[in-house]
Amino acid sequence: MTKTIALLPGDGIGPEITAPTVELLNKLGDFSFEEHLFGGASIDAHGTALTDEVTAACQRADAVLLAAVGGPKWDTTDPAKPRPEQGLLGLRKALGLYANLRPVRPVPALYDASPLKREIIDGTNLLVVRELTGGLYFGDRGRRDDVAWDTMIYSVEEIERIVRTGFKAARKKLTSVDKANVLESSRLWREVVLRVHRDEFSHIELEHVLVDNAAMQLISNPTAFEVIVTENMFGDILSDESAMLTGSIGLLPSASLGGDGPGLFEPVHGSAPDIAGKGIANPLAMFLSAALLLRHGFAMEDEAAAVESAVDRALAEGLRTADLGGDANTADAAAAVLNYL
Amino acid sequence: MTKTIALLPGDGIGPEITAPTVELLNKLGDFSFEEHLFGGASIDAHGTALTDEVTAACQRADAVLLAAVGGPKWDTTDPAKPRPEQGLLGLRKALGLYANLRPVRPVPALYDASPLKREIIDGTNLLVVRELTGGLYFGDRGRRDDVAWDTMIYSVEEIERIVRTGFKAARKKLTSVDKANVLESSRLWREVVLRVHRDEFSHIELEHVLVDNAAMQLISNPTAFEVIVTENMFGDILSDESAMLTGSIGLLPSASLGGDGPGLFEPVHGSAPDIAGKGIANPLAMFLSAALLLRHGFAMEDEAAAVESAVDRALAEGLRTADLGGDANTADAAAAVLNYL
Ligand SMILES: [Mg+2]
Ligand SMILES: [Mg+2]
Repeated sequence: MTKTIALLPGDGIGPEITAPTVELLNKLGDFSFEEHLFGGASIDAHGTALTDEVTAACQRADAVLLAAVGGPKWDTTDPAKPRPEQGLLGLRKALGLYANLRPVRPVPALYDASPLKREIIDGTNLLVVRELTGGLYFGDRGRRDDVAWDTMIYSVEEIERIVRTGFKAARKKLTSVDKANVLESSRLWREVVLRVHRDEFSHIELEHVLVDNAAMQLISNPTAFEVIVTENMFGDILSDESAMLTGSIGLLPSASLGGDGPGLFEPVHGSAPDIAGKGIANPLAMFLSAALLLRHGFAMEDEAAAVESAVDRALAEGLRTADLGGDANTADAAAAVLNYL
Repeated sequence: MTKTIALLPGDGIGPEITAPTVELLNKLGDFSFEEHLFGGASIDAHGTALTDEVTAACQRADAVLLAAVGGPKWDTTDPAKPRPEQGLLGLRKALGLYANLRPVRPVPALYDASPLKREIIDGTNLLVVRELTGGLYFGDRGRRDDVAWDTMIYSVEEIERIVRTGFKAARKKLTSVDKANVLESSRLWREVVLRVHRDEFSHIELEHVLVDNAAMQLISNPTAFEVIVTENMFGDILSDESAMLTGSIGLLPSASLGGDGPGLFEPVHGSAPDIAGKGIANPLAMFLSAALLLRHGFAMEDEAAAVESAVDRALAEGLRTADLGGDANTADAAAAVLNYL
């Protein structure tokens, strides 16, 4: 059956990088696309960053592909005014997306851009699976007299589902990151990881690493990791730290997954309003987000890998958009990648 | 008046690296040393890692210099048995040490050992000031039914004193790291930082960086930092990440400071029981800990800087102990550094 992809080009460079991505996906499968206004574009048309109609359409779709939202036009400190980011928060909530996946796969052709030495990053191919709807960022918080607090809180069920997402994404090895030598929520986390491993994924190698140690090893020995699964705040810190290993933030894709519903796939970069409309935006992170959609949304591993190697190949053959120090434009980049597909 | 330094050689290589450090300090000032059993050595003699007499002696001293504690001899999972680390926890508490200082100052002669490219680390000289007695590691925690929690909690007073420690350690710039876009405790943290800056340290440049962004910048642009001040868990993660920048963990010193009482100065490395007694331990982190004692304990900045440049010079001239891939022993290393003092 034809899979439906809800397309949210959003703002800034979003539409420019979405168009060639549709072309790329059409070469790999029989997909039906439904395009919707989202973010600032939706605010302009409907006064809200995410309408009920778009929410419903995304819930009905088999996957959601988002480019980027925001821009100075909608920047406001007035809490009563709508903001583009609200669309993202609303959509995550409506789709029940509790897992954020951030792959870090430095491309050999761009090793020079990494702050790390070539021999350290060579062969790195890791995935950070971050819990997205619980933990310290969502627990009870407040202030009384001269004291302020936040609560890191997790239920067994919340831990179980994110840990399963981690195990499912792993081929050989899962690294669970916690602070079980100090935190009670981490001790519960580790108990659940051990049980889920024993009962459902005993064929996968499991290791536990403390969060401070993980922050060290990501720099000193990033090839030690395949899939890292961790709670919300640890994942926030470690996924951003990992992103820096590549030195090319403009190339990073991400996936947000929930239960049985559609996942949301988007580049890590923003809407780059300064270069919007010029046709020079780098579409590669969007292509790589499409690869994640194929892999994690539709279980089309071969097609996902084909996109990734076409991107690697194009870069190896010298493709460089402006953000990578070259003068290739969006059309050049799209042509180069499609050529190697 | 002669300053008194309480010496805690501790276990393993501790005594071997303490002896030349006393020699080094004697070249730089008029100090009186009082040596005490601590850690495993104290367990063997007195059945406890820290006696009341030693606690009192440390409280009376002007500074405490500790080498390392622990070893397989005292490893136990029996909670009723004494453990060497309990000495450290007890001493920190008795001295009211709420600030942990970890300088990261890669030595040019050892840039090759860093996972980072030379041009990225060149010129890095940063200090992480971590709050040590509050926050997520000490707040209320527990478990009820299927849920576990920990609490990140700070009072205005706790924040004020660590922030002052940070400002005092800065010459030009302080970076306060928080997650004020999400956490209430971080919002209180930022308010206090702003007030202390305005009222007491307006001559120091102040910047606020979110913790995930800090984790990125430490890799991509470590020279952007001079002093980082942050809460306990963020500091745990960021100080360990920073430590990795040098690639030579064996060279890192640390300081723990309280209010008006003596500070505690010690290398980050452990007691290395595998090489204890062979006379081949690297004493440089201990020398650099003595430099921190001079700087932060006794305000002897010139003497502290002299130790650091003597260490740099010795390494530049080729000094390499076994941990650095060479065959210099402890005596060789001590002679080389004293020679350049
Ligand atoms: Mg982040
Ligand atoms: Mg640590």
